[in-house]
Amino acid sequence: MKFIYNFISSILKKSSLETSLKKDYVVNLSNKPDQAIESVLNATGEVSSLVYSEHILSLFAEFDDQQKMEFFTILLNKYDLNSSELIDSINEYQATPSQKGMASVLALSHPQWDKLFKRMNSTSDGTVKLVHLREDLLKMRKNHPELGRLDVSLLDMFKTLFNPGYLVMEPIDWNTPANILEKIIAYEAVHEISSWEELRSRLEPEDRKCFAFFHLAMPEEPLIFVEVALTESIPDSIQNVLSSERNIIPHSKSTTAVFYSISNCQNGLVGVSFGNFLLKQVIGQLKEEIPTLSNFVTLSPVPGFMKWLEKNDTESFNRYSQFSLEKTSSKHKDHLYELMAKYLLVSDRPDQLPNDPVARFHLGNGASVERFNFMGDVSERGMKQSSGMMVNYLYDIDLLEKYHEDYSRNQEIHASDTIKNILKVS
Amino acid sequence: MKFIYNFISSILKKSSLETSLKKDYVVNLSNKPDQAIESVLNATGEVSSLVYSEHILSLFAEFDDQQKMEFFTILLNKYDLNSSELIDSINEYQATPSQKGMASVLALSHPQWDKLFKRMNSTSDGTVKLVHLREDLLKMRKNHPELGRLDVSLLDMFKTLFNPGYLVMEPIDWNTPANILEKIIAYEAVHEISSWEELRSRLEPEDRKCFAFFHLAMPEEPLIFVEVALTESIPDSIQNVLSSERNIIPHSKSTTAVFYSISNCQNGLVGVSFGNFLLKQVIGQLKEEIPTLSNFVTLSPVPGFMKWLEKNDTESFNRYSQFSLEKTSSKHKDHLYELMAKYLLVSDRPDQLPNDPVARFHLGNGASVERFNFMGDVSERGMKQSSGMMVNYLYDIDLLEKYHEDYSRNQEIHASDTIKNILKVS
Amino acid sequence: MKFIYNFISSILKKSSLETSLKKDYVVNLSNKPDQAIESVLNATGEVSSLVYSEHILSLFAEFDDQQKMEFFTILLNKYDLNSSELIDSINEYQATPSQKGMASVLALSHPQWDKLFKRMNSTSDGTVKLVHLREDLLKMRKNHPELGRLDVSLLDMFKTLFNPGYLVMEPIDWNTPANILEKIIAYEAVHEISSWEELRSRLEPEDRKCFAFFHLAMPEEPLIFVEVALTESIPDSIQNVLSSERNIIPHSKSTTAVFYSISNCQNGLVGVSFGNFLLKQVIGQLKEEIPTLSNFVTLSPVPGFMKWLEKNDTESFNRYSQFSLEKTSSKHKDHLYELMAKYLLVSDRPDQLPNDPVARFHLGNGASVERFNFMGDVSERGMKQSSGMMVNYLYDIDLLEKYHEDYSRNQEIHASDTIKNILKVS
Amino acid sequence: MKFIYNFISSILKKSSLETSLKKDYVVNLSNKPDQAIESVLNATGEVSSLVYSEHILSLFAEFDDQQKMEFFTILLNKYDLNSSELIDSINEYQATPSQKGMASVLALSHPQWDKLFKRMNSTSDGTVKLVHLREDLLKMRKNHPELGRLDVSLLDMFKTLFNPGYLVMEPIDWNTPANILEKIIAYEAVHEISSWEELRSRLEPEDRKCFAFFHLAMPEEPLIFVEVALTESIPDSIQNVLSSERNIIPHSKSTTAVFYSISNCQNGLVGVSFGNFLLKQVIGQLKEEIPTLSNFVTLSPVPGFMKWLEKNDTESFNRYSQFSLEKTSSKHKDHLYELMAKYLLVSDRPDQLPNDPVARFHLGNGASVERFNFMGDVSERGMKQSSGMMVNYLYDIDLLEKYHEDYSRNQEIHASDTIKNILKVS
Repeated sequence: MKFIYNFISSILKKSSLETSLKKDYVVNLSNKPDQAIESVLNATGEVSSLVYSEHILSLFAEFDDQQKMEFFTILLNKYDLNSSELIDSINEYQATPSQKGMASVLALSHPQWDKLFKRMNSTSDGTVKLVHLREDLLKMRKNHPELGRLDVSLLDMFKTLFNPGYLVMEPIDWNTPANILEKIIAYEAVHEISSWEELRSRLEPEDRKCFAFFHLAMPEEPLIFVEVALTESIPDSIQNVLSSERNIIPHSKSTTAVFYSISNCQNGLVGVSFGNFLLKQVIGQLKEEIPTLSNFVTLSPVPGFMKWLEKNDTESFNRYSQFSLEKTSSKHKDHLYELMAKYLLVSDRPDQLPNDPVARFHLGNGASVERFNFMGDVSERGMKQSSGMMVNYLYDIDLLEKYHEDYSRNQEIHASDTIKNILKVS
Repeated sequence: MKFIYNFISSILKKSSLETSLKKDYVVNLSNKPDQAIESVLNATGEVSSLVYSEHILSLFAEFDDQQKMEFFTILLNKYDLNSSELIDSINEYQATPSQKGMASVLALSHPQWDKLFKRMNSTSDGTVKLVHLREDLLKMRKNHPELGRLDVSLLDMFKTLFNPGYLVMEPIDWNTPANILEKIIAYEAVHEISSWEELRSRLEPEDRKCFAFFHLAMPEEPLIFVEVALTESIPDSIQNVLSSERNIIPHSKSTTAVFYSISNCQNGLVGVSFGNFLLKQVIGQLKEEIPTLSNFVTLSPVPGFMKWLEKNDTESFNRYSQFSLEKTSSKHKDHLYELMAKYLLVSDRPDQLPNDPVARFHLGNGASVERFNFMGDVSERGMKQSSGMMVNYLYDIDLLEKYHEDYSRNQEIHASDTIKNILKVS
Repeated sequence: MKFIYNFISSILKKSSLETSLKKDYVVNLSNKPDQAIESVLNATGEVSSLVYSEHILSLFAEFDDQQKMEFFTILLNKYDLNSSELIDSINEYQATPSQKGMASVLALSHPQWDKLFKRMNSTSDGTVKLVHLREDLLKMRKNHPELGRLDVSLLDMFKTLFNPGYLVMEPIDWNTPANILEKIIAYEAVHEISSWEELRSRLEPEDRKCFAFFHLAMPEEPLIFVEVALTESIPDSIQNVLSSERNIIPHSKSTTAVFYSISNCQNGLVGVSFGNFLLKQVIGQLKEEIPTLSNFVTLSPVPGFMKWLEKNDTESFNRYSQFSLEKTSSKHKDHLYELMAKYLLVSDRPDQLPNDPVARFHLGNGASVERFNFMGDVSERGMKQSSGMMVNYLYDIDLLEKYHEDYSRNQEIHASDTIKNILKVS
Repeated sequence: MKFIYNFISSILKKSSLETSLKKDYVVNLSNKPDQAIESVLNATGEVSSLVYSEHILSLFAEFDDQQKMEFFTILLNKYDLNSSELIDSINEYQATPSQKGMASVLALSHPQWDKLFKRMNSTSDGTVKLVHLREDLLKMRKNHPELGRLDVSLLDMFKTLFNPGYLVMEPIDWNTPANILEKIIAYEAVHEISSWEELRSRLEPEDRKCFAFFHLAMPEEPLIFVEVALTESIPDSIQNVLSSERNIIPHSKSTTAVFYSISNCQNGLVGVSFGNFLLKQVIGQLKEEIPTLSNFVTLSPVPGFMKWLEKNDTESFNRYSQFSLEKTSSKHKDHLYELMAKYLLVSDRPDQLPNDPVARFHLGNGASVERFNFMGDVSERGMKQSSGMMVNYLYDIDLLEKYHEDYSRNQEIHASDTIKNILKVS
């Protein structure tokens, strides 16, 4: 047992390593960004490279926005590609393909900030810290698009590091350590969790499940999580799903797993997709654990609907933005369904992908549009976003891969007959 | 406790994941290498990409050498760089630096086999399998140097994945699981371990320690390990160190930690260096655990000495290659020390680095040459390699980083006064 | 790693074992208490014994108070000692001491309910369930003193099972699983924790520590826990200790560990003492972790002071029970200190032990009375119990065992010179 | 994750606790057995009690046989029951049953060595050490039957401590730590394991399983283990089962689990039975893991057969003790089967239980006699014990509990029709 105890211990205690090394390997640490960068790039010793990299990470953590901008600007100005050398090396490689030539192309085709980022990543908790650095970078990129050039290196590295082989799926429940649970509270993006009691009501009842992805090197940082409700049929309203007065059914009566909330935890990992893979693993695990489950659906918001309506049909927009539960009628419902079908299934975009971002996520995973739900979310946000409408996307295991191919190759969207009929009729 | 139990469980059970997914996501799996490669590179679904990649890895595991060569040759011929497109993208980027341009350069500067390798790495146990693939590749490269071009991508990826932040140091002792211990037996490269009893004698006594590095995603595969003897003084003979009749001293009397054997476990990781970092961590840990330790030295072989002597001093070579314990005298000893000093401290190489590979490793880590040991290893191998001589390299914590810098910038070698005097005199 | 994973897994999954066995070993399970008891006592098979015992435990869990009383009454009436047989066996043993004779005495000197309880304890989670059963028993004993006879067996068994060798001390912090933390909130007996935020403020800051004891077979049930504040000097007020505006000092500046709250978690374990042992282990661990610590003290309430005053000095009682922060003066303080010295150091009890229960606990552990603190706890409860006074008990490692002996053999109380002077003067 | 890491760490590190406490709580430790015993019994402090108990355990560990005998004799002579006080307390309790009276009976009915043993058990690793002490005691009891009186207390305590609720079943495989595996090698009692290679052949192939019981407080000490072979049919020869040239079948083709070796590891736990419970848990686990299994049988030796034959049928004994594989014929087989049926199924004992100890174990568990196997074990031991015969006992899940009852109440033995016919005919 000592072996595993040590293994876990080593993972958890890593943060103290460099600190102890630092004491032994005293080096000159500059607080000036340009010198600090130079120190990392010039270091020849493994340990000194780590110490300098840790130092620059701790400097960055203290930087204000202006200093961060300075830091990024130094990188852009001083450490970009040397195009002429790179082109020379390519020509040489093309003339005489060799290992050395290939290595030379590879080295020269990466700007030097790439090496800096990789060295920073090698420190303990380096990956976490770089994820946060990228979060800052992406925020600043809005006003400084040139920063996007730096991001190319980070995103490329993250795609390698956050590969499925290095991710572990964990059930999140009431036995999960508090420091992780508080992150679940903080990151829940779809249906806010306002207290520990509410969190508990999402984790502990027999008809609730929650799963998260973690990276092997970040065991205390959830990357993405999905909340699941187990029900007897496909639900048509988020209020019913979350109601504390609902009837809690035992596993043996569950037929349907509802993914009612999927939240990304790390803004610094935008562009590295986990959701697809997480959902598929969750489906696999749920099927094994609860063999009675046969439907896997979402109960999803339609965040872009009303904005789209405002642009495309002012009259309807005006009517439905004043809409409230009391004034509804089946006539409105039919009309809204027609509009929704158009919004979801007919693309206005140059790339011919669905208008709605949530639709793009689920359809891109290979799901299909199963059902619309009138007054499915009567919260303030639900009314404002989509006049209260919600959508069930269906994850049909046997068809996921085919539908995904149809979608990604031909932008084809699959939908239930009911939905297709709405579109035809309208 | 369930959380950690699940975390460990997930790591250990990962291998079964894709298998279960495969059942659900039926795909066409071709056994022809070229089609199998195409399938991976064309896959758009995350899961199908994994299934195809797993498939190609299992094909490769069954390939004989000729098939492997075919496989590699397909990659070289069909998936190399497109130089003209790459040069275009560089020119464009130079004209108008942009995120998109940078991304384009990055994408085009990697041959497509790079994408193949990264997808293979994303499978469960993918990293282990790729390490083995590279082992095969390096073997074949001897006769097929063109394969080195493929290796550029693998080595680059491994340098990112096997960064210090993803390594954990584990003590290896008699509580370590048997499947790991048998790998220690198999990989011990310096002083062979012939039985479990002998292994035990290297792990269990109070004056023995052993540490290994593992990668987070390969918890059952040691990467490198070092065996340590704790002694009262710097030892002059490996026979004494390993003698089963030695006096086992308690920690409280230990002053010296002797690294008497360092073994790399993975031929597929040649070029990714761990040894330096491992030794420094081991020193840190030993100092904390056993505060009486003040010396950290090696007892190292000199594998290249006799070969060098054969080339440079035939007469001496003839004398000392016939050498045996019985015929030694202090005159021989003095002469051998002179030759050894010349061999170790004066480079005959174009790069001005030390002639001996073991010397290059330790001096490159920042150690210094402390002492020669006449008849330090009278085993057949010891006599043949170095006429029985061994060397103590000294790891002085306070000087490691400085010595490393001197060595890597100026090829300067540090040695004790005694050693320096031998050189001066000779 | 699989071994430990399985070990943990086995501990956590034990609850499902008998359930699965039950399916295989179908037996007649009666819901009548007398028959259910008979079934357990007559079972000859190990597994059927467990199944019957589990059954009786699940029956008991559903019983209302009257049914519990019936259950206990059956035991008392039908399964008490057979005195004549026991006396016969003793006489026989005295005449011819033998193994068989001794075994016979042992068997007959235990009432049969002892066997019942031991079989119930053998089920999975049996120990937890019996602890809860005893909690019920002790409650009912108030009105039904005859139930105390049953308790003799339970207490005797618990003293064997909850021996120090089967206890593990765990730090409780913000990484502890939520299901354990919520028990800390629920069980805190001294200074209530009203929210998760407040819990966090007791666990996370660098100047806070918390430790609990667990039993090996009950890894999710804390038995007792102590909350510790790390300070620069011995504190004189609980308000200052708990203030969210206090200056949080680093470990390197801590000199004093203050045990400001000790809470037992299991009413069903009254009479099995852990507190003494827990505090000594905590002191050991804190000394190792934070070498700057030199004082180990409590900041303790004096729960019996005002009640004692009411009985012994009505005038003072009237004055100090109306007391408030605004009206205090040093005159009052001196007078209260005199009264407190008398209350704490001079026993009115037949057994000559201190009047105050908290004093009995700490002095019994070998601590001494170090200081009184005027207005140390101005909460409503503090004012009511002790007119706001608190006491520091000092745990002096070098004297603990001697003081404990003095106390337990001669009822001698050790106190600081200051305190002794107060008593002398008064 | 830190919580569980600490939990495991605490279990593993317990041994160092008292040592550290000892430094702080200096006490007078006598090396004279009588004084050392007195110190434990008189200790009033929890910690000093532990320190004295640890001391006496370490003294005992160094004792030679004579000193151990002295130690035990002191206990017998000085700390036995006080019969008259005990009888008084019983009479008093009978007159007025009360909690106090019951507690008094309980206290006086235990000799004082009972308290000594319980205190020794409370130390870290105390349980392991007491198990070893009992092993010594039982050895000496052969010549000193009076020591059996001491054993009554130990056995009674062990029955409480080693209850099924505190046992965990662990698979033993090639991932198990080496220190545990070497105990498997050492303790294998039925079919010796001569090397690590042979051990591996019993653990690693797909048609092999091994399970052990551990006690929660002794995670590195197996208590009992069973080796299992998975086969396509009920095997008739141990040579075939263990043959390295057998056909290894996959789980999907296994129909039969063969318990071919069951070994107790702790001589100090004689009288505390685990085997029954272990086999039932193993059956439960195997059924879950490998649903194709439908037969659970043993392939058992008949250790007492030839001895019985020598006494009861000298002629047959002479014939079959000279027996060898070459000279066999079906006539011999039939005759041996008749003798075996008589030996196994017809008791010569006063208690009417089966003559053979292995038969008593399995029939007592509720198994039945399924088949005899001529020349099932042609090893030297097999030929000597039972003229090469082996027996399959059948564990039929649905009948185990009924058969067990029949056996334990009426000494009824169940057997297959074939076996019954042999008996009838003969």
